[in-house]
Amino acid sequence: MKKLILDLDTGIDDSMALAYAVESSDFELIGVTGTYGNVYTEVGAQNALNVLQVLGHSDVPVYCGAKHSLHTERYLRHEISAKIHGENGVGDVDLPMASRPIEEKKAVDFLIWAITKYRQDLVIVATGPLTNLALALKQAPLLKEIIGPVVIMGGALTVPGNVSPYAEANISKDPHAAKFLFESGIDLTMVGLDVTERSQLTKQDTQTWRQVQTMSGRVFADMVDYYIAQHPHSGATASYLHDPSAVICAAHPEWFTMLPMHMTVITEGEGTGRTIGDPAKLRTPEPRVKVCVGVDSEKVERHFVETLTALFRKAI
Amino acid sequence: MKKLILDLDTGIDDSMALAYAVESSDFELIGVTGTYGNVYTEVGAQNALNVLQVLGHSDVPVYCGAKHSLHTERYLRHEISAKIHGENGVGDVDLPMASRPIEEKKAVDFLIWAITKYRQDLVIVATGPLTNLALALKQAPLLKEIIGPVVIMGGALTVPGNVSPYAEANISKDPHAAKFLFESGIDLTMVGLDVTERSQLTKQDTQTWRQVQTMSGRVFADMVDYYIAQHPHSGATASYLHDPSAVICAAHPEWFTMLPMHMTVITEGEGTGRTIGDPAKLRTPEPRVKVCVGVDSEKVERHFVETLTALFRKAI
Repeated sequence: MKKLILDLDTGIDDSMALAYAVESSDFELIGVTGTYGNVYTEVGAQNALNVLQVLGHSDVPVYCGAKHSLHTERYLRHEISAKIHGENGVGDVDLPMASRPIEEKKAVDFLIWAITKYRQDLVIVATGPLTNLALALKQAPLLKEIIGPVVIMGGALTVPGNVSPYAEANISKDPHAAKFLFESGIDLTMVGLDVTERSQLTKQDTQTWRQVQTMSGRVFADMVDYYIAQHPHSGATASYLHDPSAVICAAHPEWFTMLPMHMTVITEGEGTGRTIGDPAKLRTPEPRVKVCVGVDSEKVERHFVETLTALFRKAI
Repeated sequence: MKKLILDLDTGIDDSMALAYAVESSDFELIGVTGTYGNVYTEVGAQNALNVLQVLGHSDVPVYCGAKHSLHTERYLRHEISAKIHGENGVGDVDLPMASRPIEEKKAVDFLIWAITKYRQDLVIVATGPLTNLALALKQAPLLKEIIGPVVIMGGALTVPGNVSPYAEANISKDPHAAKFLFESGIDLTMVGLDVTERSQLTKQDTQTWRQVQTMSGRVFADMVDYYIAQHPHSGATASYLHDPSAVICAAHPEWFTMLPMHMTVITEGEGTGRTIGDPAKLRTPEPRVKVCVGVDSEKVERHFVETLTALFRKAI
């Protein structure tokens, strides 16, 4: 079983990714590193701890990471994030405060330690801005030679962005970190809007969870119902499956169509945050980024709902 | 053998597409329809006739088509076109004037006639703005139900554009026509910069043609040497293989990786001319546009150079 680290800005869909990860039989979740984005870093880390406790997985440590992007001094949470994820980041649902505290060790130090120890046996899934990972690889550049697969939720190659016609939210929050990672030569899989907007979660799914009649099932149903209500494009009956798609892709790459590319990220001008093929490397062999451009949505959706249902049956 | 119509704004790489088409054993070229773009419509049509005569194929009729895009009153040739293709459109090479005149029948009427007569047995390859095809399908909407495969050189999905970060030249010259065709439900293959910038033609290739020691070989070597000199990115030693890639794709789709998509075209704002997945149709089945996102460049390049070499041996 592979070791797994989740790098999250928890976040409703981050919570779903977390729930999927702890129940997945493919991974042993050895830690969560917190970043900014949907919420401020400390809030997200605390949310992750609280969610883990509800799910009966207080054994998983949570680390605080970067509070802002590589090229900024501070991060100001966007209003749209408060709208989509609720003021508290988890759909304004009251989660019991975890008894386990946030770790003293910093996220970047934990990443460096874990990559060094587990190498190719470690999978890292990042569903927020890529600052923590970029900082770890900048601080210890030799890690690039030993790091295992990294799967990110972020970017948009074949479809428009969601914060501009060109940029997806996670990448746009730290385009320099994303560019650094995309061009670093590491084994990177991009799970972007190209596929996450092709999979959905419906009110029928949350109803399935609610009917488990455990606290965890109810809490997740409430969170995701809040999230679905913020998706007016669907008539507020379904949400996209952003962050969970990245963990599912790490476990079941066979359900995704991937395009190997040399990718880059635009860091200036109106296109800032755009993830695009590097025009200077069109004839360069051995592209290292795999861009997900297709997905068997039916399989992903069913598998995801069933996995969480099984988890909620076991948890409190 | 399938019937073939080329819709061209001839143009150096259009001339290469034309040469490939007349020599291809997969197609019978039944006509060339002329459009604006690299040159004005009449100039391009005359260039096509002149090139056909040099190649010993004066049997192929050439028709004049649209002189400007759907939403404009006139077309003003861009300075960059005169630079890339030469003032006369064929690298300032003096081609003997064809003895065959341009047809009196108009391009759109010929397209409507040919689509109606040959239906699925007709392949149309368009390497300029898509105005002629859009006009034909707008004038006779039932054609959409019987038209065979259409292959276009145009667009950019996974790489930046070449007239803006978002738009490729052909599509940008008539984004409305392109949008109409992309969304029409016809069997459309997009051969865009994603693949045309992955294949190259070098000075060594033109030298091969020159050494055939026929007028046609010399003329094409001169034209393409001029064209290569306009590709500073390569150190002026190689050109992209834009228009020929579309005809080669029509003949050898097995050399291309295609992504089936519901595609749209941006017609307003800074992104005008961008070809992108339609975000409203991500879960809609049966996408009809096939976007070329990968190519076996080695096979394409060798096959192309060999095909034209064989042609130049036979021609004057």
